[in-house]
Amino acid sequence: MEKKELLYEGKAKQVYATDDENIIVMHFKDDATAGNGAKHAQFAHKGELNCAITTLIYERLIKAGIPTHYIKTLNSTDQLCKKVHIFPLEVIVRNIIAGSMAKRLGIPEGTPAKNTIFEICYKDDALGDPLINDHHAVAVGAATYEELATIYDLTGKVNKELQAMFKEVGVKLVDFKVEFGRTSDGEIVLADEISPDCCRLWDAETNDKLDKDRFRRDLGDVMGAYVEILNRLKTLK
Amino acid sequence: MEKKELLYEGKAKQVYATDDENIIVMHFKDDATAGNGAKHAQFAHKGELNCAITTLIYERLIKAGIPTHYIKTLNSTDQLCKKVHIFPLEVIVRNIIAGSMAKRLGIPEGTPAKNTIFEICYKDDALGDPLINDHHAVAVGAATYEELATIYDLTGKVNKELQAMFKEVGVKLVDFKVEFGRTSDGEIVLADEISPDCCRLWDAETNDKLDKDRFRRDLGDVMGAYVEILNRLKTLK
Repeated sequence: MEKKELLYEGKAKQVYATDDENIIVMHFKDDATAGNGAKHAQFAHKGELNCAITTLIYERLIKAGIPTHYIKTLNSTDQLCKKVHIFPLEVIVRNIIAGSMAKRLGIPEGTPAKNTIFEICYKDDALGDPLINDHHAVAVGAATYEELATIYDLTGKVNKELQAMFKEVGVKLVDFKVEFGRTSDGEIVLADEISPDCCRLWDAETNDKLDKDRFRRDLGDVMGAYVEILNRLKTLK
Repeated sequence: MEKKELLYEGKAKQVYATDDENIIVMHFKDDATAGNGAKHAQFAHKGELNCAITTLIYERLIKAGIPTHYIKTLNSTDQLCKKVHIFPLEVIVRNIIAGSMAKRLGIPEGTPAKNTIFEICYKDDALGDPLINDHHAVAVGAATYEELATIYDLTGKVNKELQAMFKEVGVKLVDFKVEFGRTSDGEIVLADEISPDCCRLWDAETNDKLDKDRFRRDLGDVMGAYVEILNRLKTLK
């Protein structure tokens, strides 16, 4: 299927039209940003690494029965996906407290959460993607209460599957961000990438950070961590 | 019942012990603060006005069957109340969008909410009373999911009753903050004051602000607004 006009360009991905109006090509870029775009860099091969990691993860989630936008991977940086109307929400799951929640609530980073913590942020760059609750999401028209219930249910299933997957390769799934969309036939499906760009992944033994925090916090060897995650996930094949 | 030692002093109230370990005296001070204490002033008679307004409101809520900490009003600034273990949560209801939600989500102040918006903030001065969600509240031990369900149910009933009460006196209940506590016998009850300090109250005709926003935003005649609210509520007696 041919890649046609650019429909959308985000910080780390591009979305292209295809001959089929219900199908798009998602292209993984080498760009990395942090702090709502305040920090920006390019890393050679980042697009390829995230495309390969996202492919392995989506294949696993699909096997577990989770509905997704993913159709197939076309080449080292491009995936064919169902076109969806994305809910303007970042859906976050936290198994161990870190990042913004640690800061917001004065909890030491690395504290295991007693309960599985779900959060939603309203995707709006001008507002800084603020943390919101379900009532806010409904008030701004981002989703209905019913859609949110479906989204949380699917996110819980994704968390369970990803926790198991990463545990098998000696990695703690600290937290992650996913997005959801609605297909042309009305189904709510998981969309967007799942990669070290949007997960916190700590080595189970050493707690070494194997994710984008290496970039956010200037810890060095950013791509080394991404290669490590890909190589470990490949052992599951 | 005699007022004994000071148990707790907040920004606008004091709590005193009594002879009965399950009963306290809540004293309304003349102090007003805003911006987490950054702005501070004293207004003559504010304590009396808030005590009288809170009394009228609690009497109405009790008639409507809502469990509260309130026993009786002792004098112009003191109420006798059941001693409760306060949940460290500010529970906010918004019927019209204003204040922090307007700013947070870029919505013009005064926009009616499509749905009733409930919010909780974690009461912690050092953290700036951050907005949280139910999962955060459970994670920090502020409440269980079951306690939150009871708290939201009661808050919805309070909102319904207060909306009706204020409508009868030509006032729009824009939003308000309440707190809840658990009594020694385990009941979850409404606690703390309900006054123009913690409600946004707009004249139904003119949208004039009749609440603490007159202090926060330097609109002048702060106590005139509180007197107006008290006088209107008195007409309901």
